[in-house]
Amino acid sequence: MDLKEELKKRSDFFNKELEKFLQNGEPENLYNAARHLPLAGGKRLRPIIAMISCESVSGDIRNVVPLCIALELMHNFTLVHDDIMDHSKLRRSQPSVHIKYGEPTAIIAGDLLFTKSFQSMHNLNIDPTIFKNVEYGLIDCIREICEGQELDIQFEKRKIVREEEYINMILKKTAVFFMYAAEAGGILGNGSHDKTNALNEYGKNLGLAFQIHDDYLDMSSDSKTLGKDIGNDIRNGKKTLIAVHALNTASGNDKKILEKTFCNSKATDKEVKQVFELFKKLNSIDYAKNKAKDFCNKAKNSIKILSDSNAKQILLDLADYSISREK
Amino acid sequence: MDLKEELKKRSDFFNKELEKFLQNGEPENLYNAARHLPLAGGKRLRPIIAMISCESVSGDIRNVVPLCIALELMHNFTLVHDDIMDHSKLRRSQPSVHIKYGEPTAIIAGDLLFTKSFQSMHNLNIDPTIFKNVEYGLIDCIREICEGQELDIQFEKRKIVREEEYINMILKKTAVFFMYAAEAGGILGNGSHDKTNALNEYGKNLGLAFQIHDDYLDMSSDSKTLGKDIGNDIRNGKKTLIAVHALNTASGNDKKILEKTFCNSKATDKEVKQVFELFKKLNSIDYAKNKAKDFCNKAKNSIKILSDSNAKQILLDLADYSISREK
Repeated sequence: MDLKEELKKRSDFFNKELEKFLQNGEPENLYNAARHLPLAGGKRLRPIIAMISCESVSGDIRNVVPLCIALELMHNFTLVHDDIMDHSKLRRSQPSVHIKYGEPTAIIAGDLLFTKSFQSMHNLNIDPTIFKNVEYGLIDCIREICEGQELDIQFEKRKIVREEEYINMILKKTAVFFMYAAEAGGILGNGSHDKTNALNEYGKNLGLAFQIHDDYLDMSSDSKTLGKDIGNDIRNGKKTLIAVHALNTASGNDKKILEKTFCNSKATDKEVKQVFELFKKLNSIDYAKNKAKDFCNKAKNSIKILSDSNAKQILLDLADYSISREK
Repeated sequence: MDLKEELKKRSDFFNKELEKFLQNGEPENLYNAARHLPLAGGKRLRPIIAMISCESVSGDIRNVVPLCIALELMHNFTLVHDDIMDHSKLRRSQPSVHIKYGEPTAIIAGDLLFTKSFQSMHNLNIDPTIFKNVEYGLIDCIREICEGQELDIQFEKRKIVREEEYINMILKKTAVFFMYAAEAGGILGNGSHDKTNALNEYGKNLGLAFQIHDDYLDMSSDSKTLGKDIGNDIRNGKKTLIAVHALNTASGNDKKILEKTFCNSKATDKEVKQVFELFKKLNSIDYAKNKAKDFCNKAKNSIKILSDSNAKQILLDLADYSISREK
């Protein structure tokens, strides 16, 4: 089985459905702003997880399409608002929404995507009682994403963050969404309670592995190509698992170097490089890599209960991919 | 009947329910930011309209509490984001959320209020099929509010706006929410289809009257007390009904004065005053006042079908109040 091919097949199917749903509207400028990011591509990971989870319990993926659209629009709504907060100018190699359309329209475009996400949920062709439960899951998920996003902002300002706090933050900010996608996909595929619970656990661990690997990717370029992003993350005091590990492990002179440079917006390139070398010396980069591997293994173990199928194999391979991908 | 007393009774009842619902949470800073505006008071008009509409069809207002909370939180969510867009520093005599908590946390706090609004809807104790319909109404309402907000921004940049365009904008930005509050209140009170339709029509016209009177209030101070807001609205080119009427009516030298000063951020106080005098000369202020009265009458006529009751009388008085209030 070629994982990339399997993912692409589903992502192509999903993209067609998304385009059908996300029609233009009036005022055109607002709809263009709202369509800008979702129609600019992306991995479509959340919809894909929902589709494959549905397939893994022998469900029909056509029944999860409205959920998939809701997931992707909700994800894009968070990105539009995040980019405003972070003053990020680029996303998916294109100008971010607030750069192209101005901040006021970008805020409204995000709000509109939020709304359209719920609108899509209402296209689910299921019993209204099940609908209520599945929709409530989405609502609760966004609450946690908001909380996680706020924690992420707060952590940047803090000198030190414990590993449990970091895990709790990425659980809320990233993993609950994967968790929900997998579980809801299973529910809409008419999976048994045991199986949808297993998918929930799979999604959680996959999300954690995915986010830690993201942190790792941002930090893993070698010193020669030490890019702007790494410098910014260090200067902004971004609490990745690598930084969290280093801050909690360093002592003596190492600790002094970290305290001087980490979270110091005026740190020189030389100082930034020194911190990066310290991350390597303290084994923080390897530590994060191993932690991601642990969560990947947990994700794979959690779906033992699923019957063997092509979909199950994709879920297993997706877990491996989440910690081996290079972008 | 004392309208103010009737409104206060319901607003006090609502405030207790809102406080119960809007508990603190973690991270505390985010929940403080989200609670800041809704717990700072306000007219509670939307919840009150929903409650009285429910009563007007002999419903029990305890059944609409979750809807009322949802309406107020959704309204507050739009205010939090609007204040960021407009760079407004004060709201309800307090620093606006982004001033007190910073823009990133304010954006997330708005998003959280949006989420909590839906969470409250899920507390409605009704048949899931009716729930789906009532909730879809709210979703559609927010879509229209987003569209109206974008139109409002676009209109500021335009030289001229037709009256129909202005009415369409405030219909979306303000009136649909009143419309939804009244209709959904009636539905949850088990009102007949005819009666909930009448309440919908009432809410629409009340909302239009309310918004036009708001525009009128902002412009009606006499020249001695011509405040900062009037100057700002004129300099920003804000398309109130008064401005729309003047821009469409003026000719000759009057037109030149308007074109020079309206929407000119560098206009002097003297020029602003000249435009204000022009609004009076062209009868634009009276025109808006009369238009608000027309919508008020339409609102009152639309509920003829309702049986006589204390609640119906409040709705009638509320319509009169919407165009006579001084703040």
